[in-house]
Amino acid sequence: MSRRGGWVAGLVGSLALSCAPASQHAGAGAGAAPPLALWNEGAAKAAIQRLVSNVSTQGSPGYLPAAERIAVFDNDGTLWCEQPVYIQLQFALDRVRALGSQHPEWRTQEPFNHLLAGDTKAFMAGGEHALAAVVAASHAGLTTDEFMAVVRDWLRTARHPKTGRPYTSMIYQPMLELLDYLRANGFKTYIVSGGGVEFMRAFADSVYGIPPEQVIGSQGKLRFELRDGKPVLRKLPEVQFVDDGPGKPVAIQTLIGRRPVAAFGNSDGDQQMLEWTWAGPGARLAMLIHHTDAEREWAYDRASPVGRLDKALDEAGPAGWTVVDMKADWKQVFPAH
Amino acid sequence: MSRRGGWVAGLVGSLALSCAPASQHAGAGAGAAPPLALWNEGAAKAAIQRLVSNVSTQGSPGYLPAAERIAVFDNDGTLWCEQPVYIQLQFALDRVRALGSQHPEWRTQEPFNHLLAGDTKAFMAGGEHALAAVVAASHAGLTTDEFMAVVRDWLRTARHPKTGRPYTSMIYQPMLELLDYLRANGFKTYIVSGGGVEFMRAFADSVYGIPPEQVIGSQGKLRFELRDGKPVLRKLPEVQFVDDGPGKPVAIQTLIGRRPVAAFGNSDGDQQMLEWTWAGPGARLAMLIHHTDAEREWAYDRASPVGRLDKALDEAGPAGWTVVDMKADWKQVFPAH
Repeated sequence: MSRRGGWVAGLVGSLALSCAPASQHAGAGAGAAPPLALWNEGAAKAAIQRLVSNVSTQGSPGYLPAAERIAVFDNDGTLWCEQPVYIQLQFALDRVRALGSQHPEWRTQEPFNHLLAGDTKAFMAGGEHALAAVVAASHAGLTTDEFMAVVRDWLRTARHPKTGRPYTSMIYQPMLELLDYLRANGFKTYIVSGGGVEFMRAFADSVYGIPPEQVIGSQGKLRFELRDGKPVLRKLPEVQFVDDGPGKPVAIQTLIGRRPVAAFGNSDGDQQMLEWTWAGPGARLAMLIHHTDAEREWAYDRASPVGRLDKALDEAGPAGWTVVDMKADWKQVFPAH
Repeated sequence: MSRRGGWVAGLVGSLALSCAPASQHAGAGAGAAPPLALWNEGAAKAAIQRLVSNVSTQGSPGYLPAAERIAVFDNDGTLWCEQPVYIQLQFALDRVRALGSQHPEWRTQEPFNHLLAGDTKAFMAGGEHALAAVVAASHAGLTTDEFMAVVRDWLRTARHPKTGRPYTSMIYQPMLELLDYLRANGFKTYIVSGGGVEFMRAFADSVYGIPPEQVIGSQGKLRFELRDGKPVLRKLPEVQFVDDGPGKPVAIQTLIGRRPVAAFGNSDGDQQMLEWTWAGPGARLAMLIHHTDAEREWAYDRASPVGRLDKALDEAGPAGWTVVDMKADWKQVFPAH
C-alpha cells in the first residue's frame, strides 16, 4: 500500500500546476483511413507494425495463437489526458462540492470546509490526508450500480477546464487507431491503470471499445449486503489493491494469468509493467508515450507531479524500448469532434 | 479475511472423514453425442435448456448479446470432486512431505514433524494454524512460473486415494457437457472458486477449456522482484483475497464487471454468488449440484466439513433455484477413461 502515498503525493502536487495552453486539434478525422494513418512514418510506427507482423504471421518465428496476443495499456496520459490533474481526481473534487449541501458538517470539517469555501491553498495544505478523505467521501457508500450512474452523469456534463470539451473527448486519436489495429490482428486489449476500476468501466467500452472484464485498475473494498432482501455491493472507503508500479505486473498475473506481448505506458508507474512484458520470450513491444507537445497537448516528463516520467525514460534507451515523441510521431492528438 | 477461518476449519474436519466407497464409472463416453446427452430428462436439464433458449434466441424477451452471456462455476464439488479432502490440500500435504528432506528443521517443528512422521492425528490437533502453515510452506517462495511447473508435475503423478485415477480425471463429465453447451451458445464460462487462482490455472484450460483470464480464485500476495536482472513474481505466504462466500460476488464485480446470467455451485460458499446472479433482471439460472450419489461418487450435504450444503439448500426452494440431484439427473459422473 506504500505506493498509494506516492500516487496521492503526485496528486497534491498536480493541483498546484499552472495550466498549459489549450490544446489545438488537427482537423482531419480518422474516417476510413488505413491502419495507423495518424502515425507519422518513423521508429515508433515501424516498431508497432513489426510486432504485429511477427506475432500474427503464421510461420514467423514470433508467431502466437490469438489467445496469447495480449496488449496492456495504461490509461491516464496513455489513452486520455491527465493534465492539469487526473480526471478521476477532478471527479472526486466535483462530487464533494455537489454533496456539500447534504453534509452541513463539512462546513466546519477539514478538509471539506476549505474545498467548499474555494480555498484550494488551505485544502492542499492538508496533503495526502486531505486527498484521501476526498476520494473516500466521493466514492464510498454508494452501491456499484449507483456509482456507475454517478460517474456517467458526471462525464456527460463535466468539461475539461482548458479545452471546454467533455473528458471523453480528451482521448488520443492515434491510440484509438492503435487499439483498433491490434484488435484487427487478433490482440486482446486491456487497460491496466492506477485509476479506479469502477470509474474507468463507466466509459472504457463506449470510448475505447474495451469491455469491463478487460479493465484492470485500483480497487476499493466492496461489501456484499442485502437491502430490502436484494443483494447489493457497496463501496467502502478502504483500498483493496493499488494497481500502480510493481502492482501492475502483479495485477496482470493475478487477473489475466498471461504475460502481455505489448505494453504501453507514459510514466514511472508503468516501468515494472514494461519490464515484465519485455522480459518474456519471443517478439515484444514496450512503448512509452512521451508528452512533448506543448502546442497541441502538454509537454512534461521528469519534473511533473502528474505522470512523472523519469526512471522509466532512463531505462528505455538501454533496454531497447520504444519512445513515442507525441509532437513528432502523431499527426493529430485529440479527436476532431 | 474471516472467511478463511471457516474454509480452513472445513479442511481440518475433512481430514477426519472416513472415505466413501470407490466411485464406479458408467461406461458410455460423450463422443459426438447431442448436447447434454449425459443429463437425464427432468427439471434440471429443462432449466438449463430454457435459459439458453431465452438468452440466445433473437426476439426472445430474455435475449442478450453474447458479451453479456456470463456463466460462473465453482470448482471444488461443482466441476471436480472434493472428497475425501480438497485436492489442493492434498497437493499441499504432498508437497510438505516432498520438501521434508530439504527442511531438516521441520523434523522438530510443529506441525511439520507430525506430518513427516505420518501422525495425522497429532497434525490435525494443530487445527487451522497447522493447515495454514502447510499451505504457506507449500505455496510460498516460488515464482509463479516455478509454482505452475510444480503443480503440473504433481497433477501428472498424483493419484486419487480411492479411485487411483489422476485428479484431472476426477471431473464431472455432465458438467463438461454443460460448459460446452453454454459456450456453443455464445456464453463465456468462468471459474469462480475458493481454490487458489494459480493452482487452478495449471489445469483449467486443458481440462475444462477455461483459459487463465477466466479463472477467478483466492489470491496469495505476489511480489515483483528482479533476479539476476530479470523480473519475477514471487509468491508470498500472505493472503490477498479469499474468493469464498460473499467474496465471490465481490470478485465477480471487481474482475468481470458484469453480473452473471447463470451460476453453478454446490455448497454454502456459493450462496452469495447464486443470490447475486439470481437478483439480476431477465432470464437467470442459479443451480446447486447436490451430491446424492454414494455409489458413483459421494453423498453429503448439511453435515459435511468439505463442501457443506446447508443454508444454500434451505434457500434454494423458496428462491426458485434449481437443484441437481446427481444420482437422478446424471447418467454418468466421471469420464469413462
